[in-house]
Amino acid sequence: MRVDGREALQLRPIHIETNYLKHPEGSVLITVGDTKVICTASIEDRVPPFMRGSGKGWITAEYSMLPRATEQRNIRESSKGKVTGRTMEIQRLIGRALRAVVQLDQIGERTVWIDCDVIQADGGTRTASITGAFVAMAQALSKLYENKGMKNFPITDYLAATSVGIIKDAGTVLDLNYAEDSQALVDMNVVMTGEGKFVELQGTGEEATFSPEELQQLIEAAKHGLNELFSIQKQALGEISAKIENNRDEE
Amino acid sequence: MRVDGREALQLRPIHIETNYLKHPEGSVLITVGDTKVICTASIEDRVPPFMRGSGKGWITAEYSMLPRATEQRNIRESSKGKVTGRTMEIQRLIGRALRAVVQLDQIGERTVWIDCDVIQADGGTRTASITGAFVAMAQALSKLYENKGMKNFPITDYLAATSVGIIKDAGTVLDLNYAEDSQALVDMNVVMTGEGKFVELQGTGEEATFSPEELQQLIEAAKHGLNELFSIQKQALGEISAKIENNRDEE
Amino acid sequence: MRVDGREALQLRPIHIETNYLKHPEGSVLITVGDTKVICTASIEDRVPPFMRGSGKGWITAEYSMLPRATEQRNIRESSKGKVTGRTMEIQRLIGRALRAVVQLDQIGERTVWIDCDVIQADGGTRTASITGAFVAMAQALSKLYENKGMKNFPITDYLAATSVGIIKDAGTVLDLNYAEDSQALVDMNVVMTGEGKFVELQGTGEEATFSPEELQQLIEAAKHGLNELFSIQKQALGEISAKIENNRDEE
Amino acid sequence: MRVDGREALQLRPIHIETNYLKHPEGSVLITVGDTKVICTASIEDRVPPFMRGSGKGWITAEYSMLPRATEQRNIRESSKGKVTGRTMEIQRLIGRALRAVVQLDQIGERTVWIDCDVIQADGGTRTASITGAFVAMAQALSKLYENKGMKNFPITDYLAATSVGIIKDAGTVLDLNYAEDSQALVDMNVVMTGEGKFVELQGTGEEATFSPEELQQLIEAAKHGLNELFSIQKQALGEISAKIENNRDEE
Amino acid sequence: MRVDGREALQLRPIHIETNYLKHPEGSVLITVGDTKVICTASIEDRVPPFMRGSGKGWITAEYSMLPRATEQRNIRESSKGKVTGRTMEIQRLIGRALRAVVQLDQIGERTVWIDCDVIQADGGTRTASITGAFVAMAQALSKLYENKGMKNFPITDYLAATSVGIIKDAGTVLDLNYAEDSQALVDMNVVMTGEGKFVELQGTGEEATFSPEELQQLIEAAKHGLNELFSIQKQALGEISAKIENNRDEE
Amino acid sequence: MRVDGREALQLRPIHIETNYLKHPEGSVLITVGDTKVICTASIEDRVPPFMRGSGKGWITAEYSMLPRATEQRNIRESSKGKVTGRTMEIQRLIGRALRAVVQLDQIGERTVWIDCDVIQADGGTRTASITGAFVAMAQALSKLYENKGMKNFPITDYLAATSVGIIKDAGTVLDLNYAEDSQALVDMNVVMTGEGKFVELQGTGEEATFSPEELQQLIEAAKHGLNELFSIQKQALGEISAKIENNRDEE
Repeated sequence: MRVDGREALQLRPIHIETNYLKHPEGSVLITVGDTKVICTASIEDRVPPFMRGSGKGWITAEYSMLPRATEQRNIRESSKGKVTGRTMEIQRLIGRALRAVVQLDQIGERTVWIDCDVIQADGGTRTASITGAFVAMAQALSKLYENKGMKNFPITDYLAATSVGIIKDAGTVLDLNYAEDSQALVDMNVVMTGEGKFVELQGTGEEATFSPEELQQLIEAAKHGLNELFSIQKQALGEISAKIENNRDEE
Repeated sequence: MRVDGREALQLRPIHIETNYLKHPEGSVLITVGDTKVICTASIEDRVPPFMRGSGKGWITAEYSMLPRATEQRNIRESSKGKVTGRTMEIQRLIGRALRAVVQLDQIGERTVWIDCDVIQADGGTRTASITGAFVAMAQALSKLYENKGMKNFPITDYLAATSVGIIKDAGTVLDLNYAEDSQALVDMNVVMTGEGKFVELQGTGEEATFSPEELQQLIEAAKHGLNELFSIQKQALGEISAKIENNRDEE
Repeated sequence: MRVDGREALQLRPIHIETNYLKHPEGSVLITVGDTKVICTASIEDRVPPFMRGSGKGWITAEYSMLPRATEQRNIRESSKGKVTGRTMEIQRLIGRALRAVVQLDQIGERTVWIDCDVIQADGGTRTASITGAFVAMAQALSKLYENKGMKNFPITDYLAATSVGIIKDAGTVLDLNYAEDSQALVDMNVVMTGEGKFVELQGTGEEATFSPEELQQLIEAAKHGLNELFSIQKQALGEISAKIENNRDEE
Repeated sequence: MRVDGREALQLRPIHIETNYLKHPEGSVLITVGDTKVICTASIEDRVPPFMRGSGKGWITAEYSMLPRATEQRNIRESSKGKVTGRTMEIQRLIGRALRAVVQLDQIGERTVWIDCDVIQADGGTRTASITGAFVAMAQALSKLYENKGMKNFPITDYLAATSVGIIKDAGTVLDLNYAEDSQALVDMNVVMTGEGKFVELQGTGEEATFSPEELQQLIEAAKHGLNELFSIQKQALGEISAKIENNRDEE
Repeated sequence: MRVDGREALQLRPIHIETNYLKHPEGSVLITVGDTKVICTASIEDRVPPFMRGSGKGWITAEYSMLPRATEQRNIRESSKGKVTGRTMEIQRLIGRALRAVVQLDQIGERTVWIDCDVIQADGGTRTASITGAFVAMAQALSKLYENKGMKNFPITDYLAATSVGIIKDAGTVLDLNYAEDSQALVDMNVVMTGEGKFVELQGTGEEATFSPEELQQLIEAAKHGLNELFSIQKQALGEISAKIENNRDEE
Repeated sequence: MRVDGREALQLRPIHIETNYLKHPEGSVLITVGDTKVICTASIEDRVPPFMRGSGKGWITAEYSMLPRATEQRNIRESSKGKVTGRTMEIQRLIGRALRAVVQLDQIGERTVWIDCDVIQADGGTRTASITGAFVAMAQALSKLYENKGMKNFPITDYLAATSVGIIKDAGTVLDLNYAEDSQALVDMNVVMTGEGKFVELQGTGEEATFSPEELQQLIEAAKHGLNELFSIQKQALGEISAKIENNRDEE
């Protein structure tokens, strides 16, 4: 039994509220248990210098936490004057993951800016960010697709992320909350497409190691949770989900 | 008539949702028209170096906007590596204003950290921050008062803020939204106590000037709006409001 | 009676030495009691990015103190690697104030850089900076006006600033020195034009508040001092003052 | 066939030169094909603040490249004034990996500083850094063990890292050089212990995805290469290898 | 003949105004032709970490220019967020030079902070800074000597600096102004004690070289100017000069 | 007798290994006793803004130490977020020195980037950097000369640097190691051309002074060492040395 009474392979209650903010082209509030993240997608009509002239677009992500998203107040990165290594790692992960399911040449020389702002944290903020950001991005690209009369919808498949881990006594568990994450021996984040292909797999022994057999169990647990997340994304996206599925079927 | 159909001295719809977040000692989501700010209050058991040994507490504020709180996406201050002058001015104002209604010697050598994070902006974010932060702070200090068995409740009066301005054709108006703020000739922020005393008065001609008579009209308009805000704060605070009013009556 | 023997509404001895430095287009050393500020005005033939193509000019100010302008040596902001909130607030105020009396469309796409460097501080450095910077700016714009054969002199009125405050026992006083400023209950900076219009009004209760009646008294005291400052500016400007007065009369 | 003529599962020529520098407690120059990294280990007699009083030690790593380690000269991070996200990600990985095979409570409140400086880069610099840093760390901890008369040698097993990937046409390959890395569809870094347990697994689709079957092949390829790396480390460590193996056998 | 009509070995008009500012323990305004530098000396009752417990004092210097000290306005180093290499080089030079004539063990664990702020620049700002800073420091240490009843006056000799150079056509010249400095083939700064001993000698060919014979001529020219500077310092110091000469005679 | 048994005017064993790295246009590992520096030269086809349109090239240098090049580990400048004054002084010196023997108009609008990275330090790192960087630069410019069919080889003479100093008891010594440098009374760096002309002379009394006679002895000692360094450079450069000597003879 887990600290919050869940089964080993049970996700926390998840909710995705779309059109959460007025200004951005896409925005959601994703709730995963007590973890809450505002994800927005903004379209800018230019790309970073290294992409100019390529005819292709780019997707980049920024991630931040409100100072009091956590039990103890954190110093703002703007006050420190620099972004921590953890933040950089997470924002690179989010951007890389989303780029795997978008045909960048379809969106032209535009940048999709993803902003994930954690307003309340209880573990799994990076995976919640990816899952929510996918929905916000799909909304923003859907508007772009309609407004610009684009030929093909540029998103090729669903994309979601979850965490799995090994906890002393409890064994392999899905969707760790903060208390579980703090004591996990092994912690793994899995980013997957709707078709069941891996986009990113990051497994880490926390002053511990894991065997090939344990790796298999972790992956199975993640798949179980990810399938549920794809359904929730589909529901949140409404009509946009048809555009994604069309694309997937054509491949 | 104003751009959004309001009367000259009419506030936008205002709502203060208390206990908005799980971790902070006090937290609200304040909504002023389309402006939305998360205000939290955190208690830390120490004071900044310049206050150590004084036996008194301190209140300090930080203010930030999500990148896409606005029509155009803004670069994060953490990415820039420094806080802008506008942000610094606002956070100094919030802290100074709140300190005017708290007996700092009553709270001991503790710091109240106020965080105001604008998730959606449509003008008046600094005054909404003060009005919301006051409620979050009152909740946090109320918990401290109960838990530590403090002798006196440290807040001496209500505190709220609003903006007034002079707009070509419309004349003196209350609670400017972003469209109005952009074209105002004169812009004034007024921070006042429940008893009608000024705490801060900042009037600025934007490449324009204003006469002593205009100043009087602006102040009257502000008072009108502030009285409404005190009622909304009182309702949001529930039982805590009695503690504040007790203090006020004793003075 | 005040700490330095002045009457309540008496300014400290004030002197403005013009053409203080060799290189800048305008430069003064302004002395207000023991406060001494070097104010320079430099003309640059371009505007910041947000003004380009507007056909209008811009005025921006920077403010700094020598490390030993004060009783205790301060760490240089260049050593700290960042500018403090107080400095930013002051330089924004100076720039905003000066822009109120200049027709920016008359000066073309040029920037007037104002530098206020406090070499000795005894309270009132921001108001002395504004009063001195106005004179330096008038000199620089007068040269520009002559050299470029501009049609209209771009300054529309005099501009000066002073501080007023409420001090325990002494009541309302004008032009606070450092000792008075440190113990003032209320502190107000007033920036006004020669015609008696407000440009900026910043009143602050320092862990205190002030009533509407007290506000009136403070404003009256400020006006008294500002009229004296306008005379001193006029004398310092010599022939240039005629150009300003011409403009004022035409309005 | 691969660009440099290697078989799919063939490592590049590898050499570890020990005692490469005079001052550090441990130092190696590791050569992996054309990739060359100086790895040093330094012992400091204190731990970072968050570990103080724990009685345990800490291992932290820094990673950098000479500006001209690469084909194009890179700007120094010291000139930029900040460390890039890529560097932070790598140094966090190195530190985390090494901590998995050290009993931190055995080394007391000391920090092992690992410095990995790439003097020539041709792909695989992070995995070469881990493999080399392990040897440098083993030397430094061996000296500490001898000098301080420690009861147990604190390293519990060998630790090495390599990269595997999927390349169009070539399929699954081991130990990618820079040319291969640039065109890989999937890129995976595997950090493993001498006993064959995973410490870290980071697989990334570069605008691509990979199936569970491909994951298995990648892992098999990595194991093959890692076993060779453990032999090279053992040889480089000489007598110290016995201390590690003793520990491993006891577990 | 030189651009300003001076003889080859003639200094510009030099003046040292003492007690220039109210707050610092020592302060001068030194004028060397059109170069003007405010030099202050402040005593702090502690030393930097690397000197603690040594029983000795320390002397450290900071140097800065007002933005409009020069023909073209310079960006403030506080705005840039970092100090340039040129500034660092100069402040290290000033500190090192002054330390050569002070018995640091006589002043106890105190720091003398020297601030040199150039308000107008026309070449030779670093040598003017040293010459002026010596006088400010002597005043500050004289006060310390009197107030603390120190046994020995800690300054052992006069210290001044000047520049010499080789200019096409004009040959070896003394005390270069900005126009000369810009076209000099060789530029040398010489810091010397009253007794004629070198403290610092920095000769640089500016895309040029110089022979041993030319070095001799440059040194002779410098000596000539430095002797004049010592007289001016002596006059400026008044009674304090006797304390320095006493020390010198005893050695 | 010196700490390492050398004669007063004896250099440490010196070796210059050319073509040390694969990517840069020029690269050496210079060894001076226990001091080891990797020097690289990179050619970039553009110049810094202040040189654009001049038709001339530029040479700029960067210098750094590995954290564990020294007895005690140093914090990386990239971690500190800024470059120290010492580093800036050294890199300005290296660039200035090399520019003295290159005809910048011959290389066109190109920048030669010199990188000196100290991997092991035992005193004299800045002079070793200059001596080694000259060889790396000569290689890079020789390639440019061949590839671009330049008319004249742009290097006009050899350039090397060494240190000399005065040590208590030992007197004047050549090529100080770290132990000697730490206790030297006077420390002088001399940069000279093959023809015996000075490029840079930096003599510093370390809380001490030196007489004109001592200056002569120091210079003689330096010349002695520099002649030996020119021979070592000549040998390292092989065929390239003929191009330099041709140039020299023509002048």
